[in-house]
Amino acid sequence: MSARYIPRLACFALLIGLLASAPALVVGQDANPAAPSAATDEPNIRLAIHGGAGTILPENMTDAQEAEYRAALEEALRAGYEVLRNGGSATDAVIAAIVPMEDSPLFNAGHGSVFTADETVEMDASIMEGAMRNAGAVAGVMRTKNPIRLARLVMDESPHVMLAREGAEVFAEDYDIEFRDNEYFHTDHRLEALRNAQSDAGAAYPEASEAYLGTVGAVALDADGNLAAATSTGGMTNKKFGRIGDSPIIGAGTYADNRSCAVSSTGHGEFFIRAAIAYDVCAMVRYTGLSLAEAASAVIHGTLTEMGATGGLIAMDPEGHVAMPFNTPGMYRGVIDADGSVQVDIFRD
Amino acid sequence: MSARYIPRLACFALLIGLLASAPALVVGQDANPAAPSAATDEPNIRLAIHGGAGTILPENMTDAQEAEYRAALEEALRAGYEVLRNGGSATDAVIAAIVPMEDSPLFNAGHGSVFTADETVEMDASIMEGAMRNAGAVAGVMRTKNPIRLARLVMDESPHVMLAREGAEVFAEDYDIEFRDNEYFHTDHRLEALRNAQSDAGAAYPEASEAYLGTVGAVALDADGNLAAATSTGGMTNKKFGRIGDSPIIGAGTYADNRSCAVSSTGHGEFFIRAAIAYDVCAMVRYTGLSLAEAASAVIHGTLTEMGATGGLIAMDPEGHVAMPFNTPGMYRGVIDADGSVQVDIFRD
Repeated sequence: MSARYIPRLACFALLIGLLASAPALVVGQDANPAAPSAATDEPNIRLAIHGGAGTILPENMTDAQEAEYRAALEEALRAGYEVLRNGGSATDAVIAAIVPMEDSPLFNAGHGSVFTADETVEMDASIMEGAMRNAGAVAGVMRTKNPIRLARLVMDESPHVMLAREGAEVFAEDYDIEFRDNEYFHTDHRLEALRNAQSDAGAAYPEASEAYLGTVGAVALDADGNLAAATSTGGMTNKKFGRIGDSPIIGAGTYADNRSCAVSSTGHGEFFIRAAIAYDVCAMVRYTGLSLAEAASAVIHGTLTEMGATGGLIAMDPEGHVAMPFNTPGMYRGVIDADGSVQVDIFRD
Repeated sequence: MSARYIPRLACFALLIGLLASAPALVVGQDANPAAPSAATDEPNIRLAIHGGAGTILPENMTDAQEAEYRAALEEALRAGYEVLRNGGSATDAVIAAIVPMEDSPLFNAGHGSVFTADETVEMDASIMEGAMRNAGAVAGVMRTKNPIRLARLVMDESPHVMLAREGAEVFAEDYDIEFRDNEYFHTDHRLEALRNAQSDAGAAYPEASEAYLGTVGAVALDADGNLAAATSTGGMTNKKFGRIGDSPIIGAGTYADNRSCAVSSTGHGEFFIRAAIAYDVCAMVRYTGLSLAEAASAVIHGTLTEMGATGGLIAMDPEGHVAMPFNTPGMYRGVIDADGSVQVDIFRD
């Protein structure tokens, strides 16, 4: 081994240092950068969630709508926290947090999934455990009430990581998975969004900017020191051709490794795949020694922004530090600490 | 920025140094570690391919069979080289190299794809360009003669990175893509393999060890200094439930970034997904300053081997260095240099 990596790394570290100290970081989207206090006897448990990043602006949202989102985010946080507080695993906690968001019409996942061009839903989900780096994912499932539960089943009960479309649901039939017909996934506001996308005459493809808004995700640290991450989405409004985004891609939408961090991302999925966004945060933490906040910021405000793409992510390291960078006007997000205190945010500040 | 990354990186570098000097490396599977000579006026072009890693042993192969594989690998190398020598792009070169392997019955891709449990084929392919990190992939396509061409079409002509199953082929119908019926993909030796897998009474899933053997891939550096990587496979014999392996996953089976390297991997796909193998090689090169050979070796002989999984990869950096580590008895592989000289290898030595 030569020592030549030192100048190269120093260069890289300088670049990241510049990024990490950029004004974008000062405005508060990296909520809760500090780890929970270790001074108490409380176990070092923590859970963070997101409900999608995008053009979420106070002027476009009534007080009632904002309150509805805040309540839904808090409900998800408390559901995941209950698991952690009772000594449950990070895996169980991220699922417990995601299920109510999949069951809510507010988010683009499960019940509230956006429509494909055929007025069906094609949902994607993935989960990963940091201890052994086990993972499971489903892509394009059409009748699973809670795709995140199916992703977990793939992880636990199949030798595979990723199952697609009808096959994933045929696999599920031997297990305790709830199915719903297409009507369950029909929500008026998603149909309206589809009509709007389709009336955009001449547009062969949906506008990316808002069509993917509302993906949900969670990261958690349990009392045993294990991390987990999970992501669930309905994908893009008016999607065609069996498009698979980043949410079911281990390394793009979801990653967890107890040696570095757990990540769930949300945004314009194609770019998240090309940049291996979720894994990249963990790789930076592991290989460069950057802090979680520095690495997460470098990926969103550096890599993703330089590619001209938008989105955000939530990340947690083995000490419970949380980073939640995004380069959009807003991201639905929240954190619950070991003592049960909740912080929920929607806008940039 | 604190300087605390230095001890952590030094630790990591020491570990990698130990790995890179392990006996496994001495036996020659990291062929052609040196870059092509820069002393001539020849452009610095190079192409490497693989045709799968697995229990490939001299005692299990007749001289005639070995000659057949060697000829097929050389044909693929020369097809890719013709593109590079005429000033073509690395993208065109990796496709030119992969198409004859997809058209050959010898490899588990295209014509020679293994059968699913339903006696159909479900083929996966992906491609990535190092310049802008554009990428395209298809998963589970059933009637496309050359899935790698369809992956490229997704990259060039759709706003998406990944399309799955019927949808991908509906997308392809508007373009010049050749389709074949299931009979074209029927080869007697693959049917026999399926029967063997199915007669393994009580086995709910195929044995992983050999069921995925024969994935093909290519990496290339063109005269403009651009890298590209591509991978194509029929997946696992007797697969069910729409299983997607690593080959169509950008970051697992395929990655290319002009700032670090181009990688195509082959092996037990579930582990390659969980470890983000292809991206990890590039991340190590970019973030730690390890050489390509050191990083590729750390990923295969370190990460993958520690997970208890088998496989290999081919990798090329912007200077044309090639690494081809594998932890199986053999890997079909070859390199062609700027002067047209070919090296083809199958076994460990």
